[in-house]
Amino acid sequence: MEKYGRKQELHTGTETEKLSAALPFWDKLSDAEQKLVREHTIVRVFDKNSTVFSRGSECLGFIRVLSGSVRTFLTSEEGREITLYHLRAGEDDVLSASCVVSQITFDTQMEAEEKSRILIVPSIVLARLKENNIYVRCMIYELLTRRFSDVTWTFQEVLFLRIDQRIASWIVQTCEQTGSTEIAVTHDQIARDINTAREVVARMIKRFSEEGLLRAGRGKIKVTDMEMLKNLCFNCRQE
Amino acid sequence: MEKYGRKQELHTGTETEKLSAALPFWDKLSDAEQKLVREHTIVRVFDKNSTVFSRGSECLGFIRVLSGSVRTFLTSEEGREITLYHLRAGEDDVLSASCVVSQITFDTQMEAEEKSRILIVPSIVLARLKENNIYVRCMIYELLTRRFSDVTWTFQEVLFLRIDQRIASWIVQTCEQTGSTEIAVTHDQIARDINTAREVVARMIKRFSEEGLLRAGRGKIKVTDMEMLKNLCFNCRQE
Repeated sequence: MEKYGRKQELHTGTETEKLSAALPFWDKLSDAEQKLVREHTIVRVFDKNSTVFSRGSECLGFIRVLSGSVRTFLTSEEGREITLYHLRAGEDDVLSASCVVSQITFDTQMEAEEKSRILIVPSIVLARLKENNIYVRCMIYELLTRRFSDVTWTFQEVLFLRIDQRIASWIVQTCEQTGSTEIAVTHDQIARDINTAREVVARMIKRFSEEGLLRAGRGKIKVTDMEMLKNLCFNCRQE
Repeated sequence: MEKYGRKQELHTGTETEKLSAALPFWDKLSDAEQKLVREHTIVRVFDKNSTVFSRGSECLGFIRVLSGSVRTFLTSEEGREITLYHLRAGEDDVLSASCVVSQITFDTQMEAEEKSRILIVPSIVLARLKENNIYVRCMIYELLTRRFSDVTWTFQEVLFLRIDQRIASWIVQTCEQTGSTEIAVTHDQIARDINTAREVVARMIKRFSEEGLLRAGRGKIKVTDMEMLKNLCFNCRQE
């Protein structure tokens, strides 16, 4: 079990009972199904940078990020990575249950970006619910449809947007999420997030800095002209 | 109605009655719902290269390609296109009903690659069924999950594969679909299909030809060494 960076496995009756009742399909389960979910739902803690799910690891199931953040990505045969989307606290996902969904024919990987607590309804339970309960079945495909949009947006950004637009978008969106104009981040993290090389990010941050859009320090960025950044940023203009 | 290249609109009672009964969710509909579908399902003929669906056109609904072939693609602001997948005779799709599915937040376009007959359950009918019938709702998301896989495979190919692998894959797969080693196709069509420039395809076909993998003539390709092509081709090796 240590293999994938799990340091702890909590399974206290009261906690999983409370958490299970918060699942999006809970009210549609029969008493027997609720019992099954309650008895098998677990909470696991993943250390920063540890693997949550990969081709080699077991098929997880339905997951909800309770705290922390998880990155989902594709890997090429040569080891190149493409970040597809992030799951943050409160978000649900079933892509790590691809063994349960025959329509999913590609392999993704997930890793904890920081120490993360994750609720898991194991795939074996999920498979049984999917088989017998149309509401669970529908919820699984509905969640996957949401991820379909996330992935297609990533696709469009990588293939259609210029690198300055992608970096500007990343900075503006991160500022909006945190409610601050200062971001603690390395060029490496941005590069991985928008699927480019560290050197490309470094060069662009330098240009933004020279143009007075931001000030860059070691491991941090302080936006000084948000309006100009938003003008560059593709998604932001549409708001 | 002429705007999107529709030349004909058939709505003969017997035909749509027969076709409606072949829908994947037909058996799960109430009598009233079956009546609704039967009365509103239509068959439209689209000319080669005409628009089946785009951001500017009306939201279509559930579609089944009865004959011909439909290409689904993304377009950048500058007009660059990325082919996502093809729908061939017998295939169903609901991405042209994105107005019915709030989880789909991106805009795709569809065009007929050849003269095509398409069965359409209009979006207004589909929306009502989705609202009231969990089986239709589930079928919609299930179909979209299948497209999610198609799109992610395209994504991986464009971003991870070398151009020679992508062209080899295209040729091998097309031969397998048609059951022939000869393909009637222009460099332009291949280029659009695998999301590259015509010149790139021309150069690679020339190289393949020099290496004895195929013979290329005006508007056609004849594979002469399928095994060597398969060695290049990424998906094929896994079979």
